[in-house]
Amino acid sequence: MAKQKKTAITPTREENYPEWYQQVVRAAELAENSDVRGCMVIKPWGYALWENIKVGLDKMFKETGHVNAYFPLFIPLSHLEKEAAHVDGFAKECAVVTHHRLEQGEDGKLVPAGELEEPLIVRPTSETIIGSTYARWVESYRDLPILINQWANVVRWEMRTRLFLRTTEFLWQEGHTAHETEAEALKETRLILDLYKKFAEEYMAMPVLVGEKTPGERFPGAVSTLCIEAMMQDRKALQAGTSHFLGQNFAKASGIQYSSRDGGKEFAWTTSWGVSTRLIGGMIMTHADDDGMVMPPRLAPSHVVILPIIRKEEDRDAIMEYCNELASRLREKRFHERDVEVVVDDRDINAGEKGWGWVKKGIPIRAEVGPRDMENNSVFMGRRDTGKKEGINKETFVEGVVETLEEIQQNLLQRALDHRAEHTKEIDSYEAFTQFFTPKDKDRPEVHGGFAMSHWCDAEACEKKINDEMAVTIRTVPFDRAESGGGECICCGKPSVGRVAFAKSY
Amino acid sequence: MAKQKKTAITPTREENYPEWYQQVVRAAELAENSDVRGCMVIKPWGYALWENIKVGLDKMFKETGHVNAYFPLFIPLSHLEKEAAHVDGFAKECAVVTHHRLEQGEDGKLVPAGELEEPLIVRPTSETIIGSTYARWVESYRDLPILINQWANVVRWEMRTRLFLRTTEFLWQEGHTAHETEAEALKETRLILDLYKKFAEEYMAMPVLVGEKTPGERFPGAVSTLCIEAMMQDRKALQAGTSHFLGQNFAKASGIQYSSRDGGKEFAWTTSWGVSTRLIGGMIMTHADDDGMVMPPRLAPSHVVILPIIRKEEDRDAIMEYCNELASRLREKRFHERDVEVVVDDRDINAGEKGWGWVKKGIPIRAEVGPRDMENNSVFMGRRDTGKKEGINKETFVEGVVETLEEIQQNLLQRALDHRAEHTKEIDSYEAFTQFFTPKDKDRPEVHGGFAMSHWCDAEACEKKINDEMAVTIRTVPFDRAESGGGECICCGKPSVGRVAFAKSY
Repeated sequence: MAKQKKTAITPTREENYPEWYQQVVRAAELAENSDVRGCMVIKPWGYALWENIKVGLDKMFKETGHVNAYFPLFIPLSHLEKEAAHVDGFAKECAVVTHHRLEQGEDGKLVPAGELEEPLIVRPTSETIIGSTYARWVESYRDLPILINQWANVVRWEMRTRLFLRTTEFLWQEGHTAHETEAEALKETRLILDLYKKFAEEYMAMPVLVGEKTPGERFPGAVSTLCIEAMMQDRKALQAGTSHFLGQNFAKASGIQYSSRDGGKEFAWTTSWGVSTRLIGGMIMTHADDDGMVMPPRLAPSHVVILPIIRKEEDRDAIMEYCNELASRLREKRFHERDVEVVVDDRDINAGEKGWGWVKKGIPIRAEVGPRDMENNSVFMGRRDTGKKEGINKETFVEGVVETLEEIQQNLLQRALDHRAEHTKEIDSYEAFTQFFTPKDKDRPEVHGGFAMSHWCDAEACEKKINDEMAVTIRTVPFDRAESGGGECICCGKPSVGRVAFAKSY
Repeated sequence: MAKQKKTAITPTREENYPEWYQQVVRAAELAENSDVRGCMVIKPWGYALWENIKVGLDKMFKETGHVNAYFPLFIPLSHLEKEAAHVDGFAKECAVVTHHRLEQGEDGKLVPAGELEEPLIVRPTSETIIGSTYARWVESYRDLPILINQWANVVRWEMRTRLFLRTTEFLWQEGHTAHETEAEALKETRLILDLYKKFAEEYMAMPVLVGEKTPGERFPGAVSTLCIEAMMQDRKALQAGTSHFLGQNFAKASGIQYSSRDGGKEFAWTTSWGVSTRLIGGMIMTHADDDGMVMPPRLAPSHVVILPIIRKEEDRDAIMEYCNELASRLREKRFHERDVEVVVDDRDINAGEKGWGWVKKGIPIRAEVGPRDMENNSVFMGRRDTGKKEGINKETFVEGVVETLEEIQQNLLQRALDHRAEHTKEIDSYEAFTQFFTPKDKDRPEVHGGFAMSHWCDAEACEKKINDEMAVTIRTVPFDRAESGGGECICCGKPSVGRVAFAKSY
């Protein structure tokens, strides 16, 4: 007899967390590796999740006055070079287009031909190409602010890739704004950060810390980088979104200059900000369990799957009618600006396999309907978050579905909040700090303390020492850092104005 | 005194059609050339139009059982080579990635480094990379059909580019489906064509001919290519969308094989189909006039602009209140699955300039509100399609806005239908045919007859002769070709089973 599996995903989180992650992505049919090194295929169920992320964020951007546009995929090398720190940051991971056609080589094989005068870089981010466009658009202070977002693909040639978390090509949005004053640009940077936090918590059910990156962790070319950081189930941090205040660096590099109100010539103040398909990796590692994905209802591609259980062929028509009527009634309900989305899965495959398929995909609610359920005017409901299954009156089910979805959404957020609270500690001695970040078991390097809220003297040397010794970085310097009170740097003992968040990270 | 301009666009269509087109794109703020050869920047007003196109098409795709997914930007050269005709068709216009980083050269300048073992092609279309993915997904007939669409950017290194019509990078959707039988794949190819026709006519107000391409005009690697073809205002044809039946060509090239119902191994039957940002070029050349763009209401980024006319500062508050209340009331109305979208343009710029700006952008309805309109409880309405302006009671305006938008939509379609009818002729002599396609004025090469419905013997030689002599091609072979009755080939006099559509084209 085959060994009875207790969970749908092998290995479990406890057995091998990184491998569990890959298996959840596979089992939930979210994405897979392609034939192109480091590039993924986002499968329909994963792409539908991304579409919902896009809809939610896009609405927030538009409500705060932003519009979408589209800029070129390619960046001339000379543009990228205009901002020195920027090109340094990306030079090691650029896909470079050098030719514009193919021709038959001596052995009859096709080879690149038509060499370009200037190589083109496949955009790793678009500050420079957008900057040169804004330079054409902006003449006077009346042309400001420019508040534009772009939904696009970008390429960074990563050496080690992992589906959603770090891929050579990924999908994202990148906002690029230009302002008349420093204060406005700073306000924009913060506005977007708050919006990302809201989206992470209210849509993704993923709590995040907010704050500023240390100078060493800034975006190449930025004056300051704000970020949202989430705790994954292995207690590592995931940087889930960043909002950069670029000062006048890129405006000077690209020549975004305007006639000011007093008749002078000034450089604009710019910002950029982005979140990517990495968010999907964050949702998996926040909510998924040993049975697969768990979708937060507000972003779930579908909310409810109805599973007709047809044991005798003569029952088929009646059960299907019951299921379709149930689906119609559910679809009339609204949950957070969407109609409740329902799949009736009548595929002719093994019922157990079919049900587990939906568990693994993480659909919030499963509703089985067999002959007895029909007789009792009920459904057999399974909740993905709690695993609870129960027979329930059909009316009660239909009338309660929106509330149930809301409950699941809140439950997932609360669970993640509890997890983070449990694994976040204020630590004041270097020994305790080291202990906190030392894995207890060499086979499970992910089992360490979590987030350490500790004091830091602001010296790069201390930050570096901790990183070198423990692979721990400062994830955020909280805006309200001073509220945690002053203290002594965890590393060198010098004065610190307040605690910062240390963690291992993705 | 400055010369009084009669139209907002210089030159007019009659003066210089190609230049008029560029000026409309510019004046309507739809797009512009970027610093990257042949790549465009799609500006917010143009991108909003593209977003509406996407929403409309995406809904149609989903209603017919398709789902979205995402495949890699890059195609390994070896994949592209798998289908011989396919690679022949695209080899001359491929952007080739050969390196994956930049490093400092001898002169300190950055140069490409990290040469790839195998060059990557920036996708010109995705049959081969998607085919290799489907080959992994498909094992049994139970895995079919696969009905997937992708919204993406693609790159074809065109030597002569023109905003929207032909650009190096463009945005599009590409559907890729795999089926168990030839009949199903053929049905899909036709289903999509019908859907494109419906979209072109009902959303874009752009009538199209449908039919099949001749063998010489097929997509590289296809068994047959179906298309929609529209007539532009210069009487040239624009191929606006294609749907390809690929037979088993790509399935064999990529190895998409399935276990059939009778236990054998069979290759799948595949299709692909796409429309692109070229549709925007088609809309401009169908509807725009000498005052700029004319947006069909169903796709217009906004439906109504309200223009407060404030001559005295003391009127400002009252007028703005009147305008904002008007906007709120309009926004409560629904027009074709969207809320009526309203802009209140209170920018502090010259009123005439402001009004003309919206004319050039092609917004369907302008509503000016000055002190006298307010006193009379009216608005001064301008319709973009007819140019008609009139004072109208506010209630009447609000209650009639949806009907007015519908009227504009129908009017634009009717105008385009009339234009096409006027310039489509059945021609049966080669002399008349030659006359039809000969420009009367060498300065206006666009002024020729239009579409000639003429007989053709199906020989490539005749097709080629006509193309060589007149730059005229067969745009479509109608499905109902036989209904037009038999005749003699316009070129060689041999028997023809029915008329086909000849035209000059973009």
